[in-house]
Amino acid sequence: MKKSVGPQTIVYPTPVFIVGSYDPNNNPNVMTAAWGGICCSDPPCVSVSIRKLRKTYDNIIASRAFTINIPSEKFVNEADYYGLVSGKNIDKLSDTNLTAVKSEILNAPYIKEFPIILECSLLHTFEIGIHTQFIGEIKDVKVEENCVSENGDPDIEKIKPIIFSPDNRMYYSIGNNIAKAFNAGKIFKK
Amino acid sequence: MKKSVGPQTIVYPTPVFIVGSYDPNNNPNVMTAAWGGICCSDPPCVSVSIRKLRKTYDNIIASRAFTINIPSEKFVNEADYYGLVSGKNIDKLSDTNLTAVKSEILNAPYIKEFPIILECSLLHTFEIGIHTQFIGEIKDVKVEENCVSENGDPDIEKIKPIIFSPDNRMYYSIGNNIAKAFNAGKIFKK
Repeated sequence: MKKSVGPQTIVYPTPVFIVGSYDPNNNPNVMTAAWGGICCSDPPCVSVSIRKLRKTYDNIIASRAFTINIPSEKFVNEADYYGLVSGKNIDKLSDTNLTAVKSEILNAPYIKEFPIILECSLLHTFEIGIHTQFIGEIKDVKVEENCVSENGDPDIEKIKPIIFSPDNRMYYSIGNNIAKAFNAGKIFKK
Repeated sequence: MKKSVGPQTIVYPTPVFIVGSYDPNNNPNVMTAAWGGICCSDPPCVSVSIRKLRKTYDNIIASRAFTINIPSEKFVNEADYYGLVSGKNIDKLSDTNLTAVKSEILNAPYIKEFPIILECSLLHTFEIGIHTQFIGEIKDVKVEENCVSENGDPDIEKIKPIIFSPDNRMYYSIGNNIAKAFNAGKIFKK
């Protein structure tokens, strides 16, 4: 039996994206965003929703570029910090002793220490209520060399990403491999 | 040191959403979608990207409503099946012995056996390359009574959602609770 809990913003899993951008003086900023995900296969695009009051909003509108930096679980405190404070008056990366690196292909910084990052050029902005959705075309993905599998692809089990749970406001790690996609469902084929 | 792997559609975590819709004859259909997430806090909205060749695309355009059904890990085979086959010629729910229930508040079916479902009315469609992004306003969330915590909220540890990993095309379970959000980062505050 199902119980109504009202129109809440809850899905599982919810990601922990750290959005990297430069202000007009080339100062790097990062902010934590949970409202986003891949939104198109071709061109490859990722969406992230940001409110107009954020410094990141102004930065991306001006620079037309951003990065999505995915933390591993060992950076859970840093990832949480980037969502607790505004970059308008402080340098969040410096506070946490992490390093901004300028992308070689577009005008946005990424976090050197994080295991996997997406370099995105701004393709669209869509207005949805209090959030603006930024659609970034993924121009490249960069992965730490020790986080790839034998065939050279990113390896989720080495990356150890963080999952956000909006209901109890907790972070979780990735659990066990439970099934092979595009395969497990074949048992129902007639 | 980071290695370039090209413009791939990879983020962690990626969700496993089962999109429920009715065709014009009120036949329920479900399909698996991994490109989506919450996209606005107010009004509460969820996005899901669907290609025009899908039956679900036509259904939502006509009905202006859909559900997002989140499977628990025990339904991983069913969730995978709904992405393997088209609902144009078969009844996927019947093949898997699961049950479509008509929403009481809008014109879309949800899956009775799944632990948590979102009932959405179509607010916008945004064109992004080969995918169309459907923005659904969340009108209600319904949770199985045995998947709520003591305070009545949805409980991720009872829901046991599935995580999709786009790199190795595997499904994972949720792991351990590692930190409290909006709290863990306070150690860096000055």
